[in-house]
Amino acid sequence: MRQIKMIRFYIGRIMRNLAVFIRWGIFSAFVGLFVGAFSTLFAFCLRQVTSFRTENPWLILCLPLAGVVIVFLYGVFRYKNDKGTNMVLSSIHAEAEVPFRMAPLIFISTIITHLFGGSAGREGAALQLGGSIGQQLGKLFRFDEKDQRIVVMCGMSAAFSAIFGTPIAASIFSMEVVSVGVMYYAALVPCVFSSLVASKFANHMGIGPNVFKIRQMPLFEVVPSLKVIGLALCCAALSVVFCMALHSLGDFYRNKLKNPYIRIIVSSLVIILLTIILQTDDYMGAGVPVIQRAIQGNVEPLAFVWKIVFTALTLEAGFKGGEIVPSFFVGATFGCLFGHIVGISPSLCAAVGMMSVFCGVTNCPITSMLIAFELFGYHGVPFFLLGISVSYLMSGYYGLYHDQTIVYSKYKTEYINRKARN
Amino acid sequence: MRQIKMIRFYIGRIMRNLAVFIRWGIFSAFVGLFVGAFSTLFAFCLRQVTSFRTENPWLILCLPLAGVVIVFLYGVFRYKNDKGTNMVLSSIHAEAEVPFRMAPLIFISTIITHLFGGSAGREGAALQLGGSIGQQLGKLFRFDEKDQRIVVMCGMSAAFSAIFGTPIAASIFSMEVVSVGVMYYAALVPCVFSSLVASKFANHMGIGPNVFKIRQMPLFEVVPSLKVIGLALCCAALSVVFCMALHSLGDFYRNKLKNPYIRIIVSSLVIILLTIILQTDDYMGAGVPVIQRAIQGNVEPLAFVWKIVFTALTLEAGFKGGEIVPSFFVGATFGCLFGHIVGISPSLCAAVGMMSVFCGVTNCPITSMLIAFELFGYHGVPFFLLGISVSYLMSGYYGLYHDQTIVYSKYKTEYINRKARN
Repeated sequence: MRQIKMIRFYIGRIMRNLAVFIRWGIFSAFVGLFVGAFSTLFAFCLRQVTSFRTENPWLILCLPLAGVVIVFLYGVFRYKNDKGTNMVLSSIHAEAEVPFRMAPLIFISTIITHLFGGSAGREGAALQLGGSIGQQLGKLFRFDEKDQRIVVMCGMSAAFSAIFGTPIAASIFSMEVVSVGVMYYAALVPCVFSSLVASKFANHMGIGPNVFKIRQMPLFEVVPSLKVIGLALCCAALSVVFCMALHSLGDFYRNKLKNPYIRIIVSSLVIILLTIILQTDDYMGAGVPVIQRAIQGNVEPLAFVWKIVFTALTLEAGFKGGEIVPSFFVGATFGCLFGHIVGISPSLCAAVGMMSVFCGVTNCPITSMLIAFELFGYHGVPFFLLGISVSYLMSGYYGLYHDQTIVYSKYKTEYINRKARN
Repeated sequence: MRQIKMIRFYIGRIMRNLAVFIRWGIFSAFVGLFVGAFSTLFAFCLRQVTSFRTENPWLILCLPLAGVVIVFLYGVFRYKNDKGTNMVLSSIHAEAEVPFRMAPLIFISTIITHLFGGSAGREGAALQLGGSIGQQLGKLFRFDEKDQRIVVMCGMSAAFSAIFGTPIAASIFSMEVVSVGVMYYAALVPCVFSSLVASKFANHMGIGPNVFKIRQMPLFEVVPSLKVIGLALCCAALSVVFCMALHSLGDFYRNKLKNPYIRIIVSSLVIILLTIILQTDDYMGAGVPVIQRAIQGNVEPLAFVWKIVFTALTLEAGFKGGEIVPSFFVGATFGCLFGHIVGISPSLCAAVGMMSVFCGVTNCPITSMLIAFELFGYHGVPFFLLGISVSYLMSGYYGLYHDQTIVYSKYKTEYINRKARN
């Protein structure tokens, strides 16, 4: 009698688990397909406008006009206090909701920003796009509040995966970034499924990942390791500077230039002026070609400084995009320079710098490791581990996303549960 | 004036962080070297006794005697309630301490177990060795209670890395396994440093990792994916069975055969009898050759069942070793069989099965992914992601380590903080 009860109990539980699995499996594959399709379209549009802008660099002269259009659009949709990717993180903390009108808005504004040469990334936009679409689908299927968070993560993973072509890192990123130190493993299956489907879809449509090849890999010995640790220390400092630059300019604009139209026009004029002085289009758009050159070992010495300046001017003025590819740019160009100065493969240093700065500004060491494998392969893994872990520790509690929670101390095994500083 | 204060404040903070970094950097490199040396010696001894046993299979007839020696040794050192790897996990929860006499005890007993053909792994022993040595070093340098936890993790990482040759997975494993869902990132730099140093040392001494090559990789399409998901569901069930088998036999022994000498003699006799009936040495020791054959696509149909039986008989009777390599064995042999039955690359299925069962019994999805990359390379990544995530979700709250805490629900984004069931 007791055994029959036991067996019933176990069968009941297996059935319940299977039901959870099938429900999430199907739903997340669907989210992957849907968000993947949107993100692929987004990536495709970005690619088109970027190649159009590369051929017509005079477009930057229209940047002030583009800015006015973006501010106007956000005004029309009564959506002035845009918090960008923060909004998506808050929605996972269940403090806010991602409004659906955010999806088309961020889509169009990012395309405009890139067309007219603003310095911005694309993942930020993709994360907001994915989170927003995911949440709408979750509402449609009447998920409860807790599952709704998983749905948002699922959408973020799908978008990141489609745009960036790194399905593993994408699956983990949305689980890691929200609360540093806590892994929302309940979202593991949904995030893995949606990001695999999305990357498959994007790949099928011809949006492949950028894969880089590191040149002159040194052996993993004491001297190169110490040099890489030195690089990581600098990258940690650089990520703090990057976060502070964005934040300070944002504060300055909010206090001194309260009118968003004037703000975006002034910022655009400064960008145009700097572009004319520097006579280069290196700092327009995401800047993937510059990253590629850095990984090949070629770099302008001050590129990393200028990228910080241009990105802060672009994003804090109200243009849209994201901070992730700019952080790659800053890390790669600085790393390459560091390699030339210190006398160790500039190509390796560019790659390690890229991941270290990314880790410093997002506080996501595991995602950084996974991106490193997916972009650079298994070679040089010890150097990436050193760079990422040191940059994580030394970049303090600064971060790009104000709504990111850092749950455990970086220095002690202590519960601190504080917001990232920026 | 205010700015000078600010600058002082920042410089003070930078100095504090640098001090933390340098302290941990040096200490963890030292732990890596020390534990790496011990673990290399351990791995070397294991290799010697394994090759000696392979040439002299009659040694299994002395298994009862070997068992008596092990029980006697644990008795002499007044250390009867051995909880194995659990002890190390508890010490990180700050509930217990790893006694130093554990290190030589586990070293010798594991060597004896392997020499006489007991079915057991080696990582379990290595983790205990590393944790125990780490803790002693921490005491020597007077670390406080919270840092002491990091030191134990640091030692575990070093040992895992030296024995298994997978530095990335080793760094993350000790941070992930203690409390599932919480990442102790404060231990990131120490664990990375110690595991890199230890793996470098072991490599230098000729203890390299086992690297496997998957044959006949199918394309990542719908049908192979569904088959892999089917495999993962079976592996989840298998990991529950594995945990239950160990646990039930342990309970049975504790209740019915209270005398540890009689217990280990009876168990040894059963092992000898089964070995004579089956006429194979496949189930002696860790069984790496069988895993290798499975990854090449060759397998005995019932190998996975027998390995569970042999491992339970060995470990629950009081022999020492670990459960990790046996879980690899069970997963690989079952996966290979599944591949033959369902008609999809048995080699891929063996590899995916290996990681899925490991994930099911340890509840460590990220470590599983990292081990997969380190052992099998980047090919087949989508299949590993599917297998690992599904097995994680579906294996419930079962686990090898009773003192492992599962902090967040596997099904909802909920705080549950319960112990693993076994």
